Amino acid sequence: MLTLSLIGIGCGDPGQLTLAAIGAINAADLILIPRKGVAKSDLAELRRAICADVLTNAATRIAEFDLPVRDAGDADYRRGVDDWHDAIAATWSREIASHVGGAGRVALLIWGDPSLYDSSLRIARRLDPLPTIEVVPGVTSIQALCAAHALPLNDIGEPFLVTTGRRLREGGWPAGVDTVVVMLDGGTAFQALEPKGLQIWWGAYLGMPDEIMMSGELAEAGPRIVAAREAARERHGWIMDSYILKRRP
Amino acid sequence: MLTLSLIGIGCGDPGQLTLAAIGAINAADLILIPRKGVAKSDLAELRRAICADVLTNAATRIAEFDLPVRDAGDADYRRGVDDWHDAIAATWSREIASHVGGAGRVALLIWGDPSLYDSSLRIARRLDPLPTIEVVPGVTSIQALCAAHALPLNDIGEPFLVTTGRRLREGGWPAGVDTVVVMLDGGTAFQALEPKGLQIWWGAYLGMPDEIMMSGELAEAGPRIVAAREAARERHGWIMDSYILKRRP
Repeated sequence: MLTLSLIGIGCGDPGQLTLAAIGAINAADLILIPRKGVAKSDLAELRRAICADVLTNAATRIAEFDLPVRDAGDADYRRGVDDWHDAIAATWSREIASHVGGAGRVALLIWGDPSLYDSSLRIARRLDPLPTIEVVPGVTSIQALCAAHALPLNDIGEPFLVTTGRRLREGGWPAGVDTVVVMLDGGTAFQALEPKGLQIWWGAYLGMPDEIMMSGELAEAGPRIVAAREAARERHGWIMDSYILKRRP
Repeated sequence: MLTLSLIGIGCGDPGQLTLAAIGAINAADLILIPRKGVAKSDLAELRRAICADVLTNAATRIAEFDLPVRDAGDADYRRGVDDWHDAIAATWSREIASHVGGAGRVALLIWGDPSLYDSSLRIARRLDPLPTIEVVPGVTSIQALCAAHALPLNDIGEPFLVTTGRRLREGGWPAGVDTVVVMLDGGTAFQALEPKGLQIWWGAYLGMPDEIMMSGELAEAGPRIVAAREAARERHGWIMDSYILKRRP
């Protein structure tokens, strides 16, 4: 019996680890840590630091592996992602087979929460043999962003939309909502919006020592955020940020 | 200096407590526990149990207070909520003044996460004197629901809407999304939808010993959920549930 535990670890602050996550880490026979190249080596380092902090089971092994790189040149985005997930699943399968064989508990530490803009669940379903899949929920970057700004996410009884930078850039302000959470924005898609009447709450490296937070009227705060984001990205080599936009109804 | 710490405690499973939440509980001079009447006494009991489990600071006091009841008879929903929040703020202020006076650290344990369909942040801003407000993010029932079903919340690169039962009942399927999370549904608003092509993932008392989960095609699973929900609500005297709907694009 093979069990794969996808463990949400929150978004950078080791304090966001839950007791269940710590329990699942210590219940594992094998913890897989992906290396994503030099630019994101901080992320592998954070996973190593979390294991060093909370792992007390001497029998748990840690194995690092190089994450396959997505072919960004594939004109068909979905097919590119699909092939990439197949390649990652093959890599996981190899690591699992070589370290625990056909039986045992394998764990992956997932940034934020495994259900939210993360592909681990989809990749896990491609494994051969198919393991029993367990999910340990984690604090998401949406929650961390709201907490950092002490911001209620929804207005009273009102809906909100969670979307991507690409969607916001291509589609403009979404219909039917006054609150929008933007994830996976490789750039600053909010610049595509008419800023009048919009407020923004932005954060990068949330919960980490280099956390940056900015907020205000989009017309005024937008350019500040663009400049701060670019400077931070150059300094770190990578950036992980998200933001919330609200429109006055 | 008065600090009010709003601590997300996850949604029923004590394992969802984060290390930061445990730290904030133990840093408090006073923990306020609301009593919401007999029907929801399980919830006060869970907060007491969490304190009993993780509180190691002998100097931390716990004070229980009766939560004012909202005047559901007010025809103006917003005004009713507004008056209710004022009444709760006045109660918090009295409890804080009598237990810690004008200086100290006061904590409230918030179901799920303080930013998500919770009024504590809005009530805190009505306190007089105004405390410094800190938020400790928590695992939301959305994450717990996805974890229980091992369900990726969003489709790849796609948005999702988080809304209320009332909105879904009144507005039908929202424009522009194929995934909808429904919170605060006092009933079973999904019954107002044409079920063809819709799938549902439902959960009640998530993370608690009485957790119930159901999923399937809405046409088939919907009636099962309606029956299970009604039986559980009668047995417990209250129910806390949420669900995710997906439409095949």
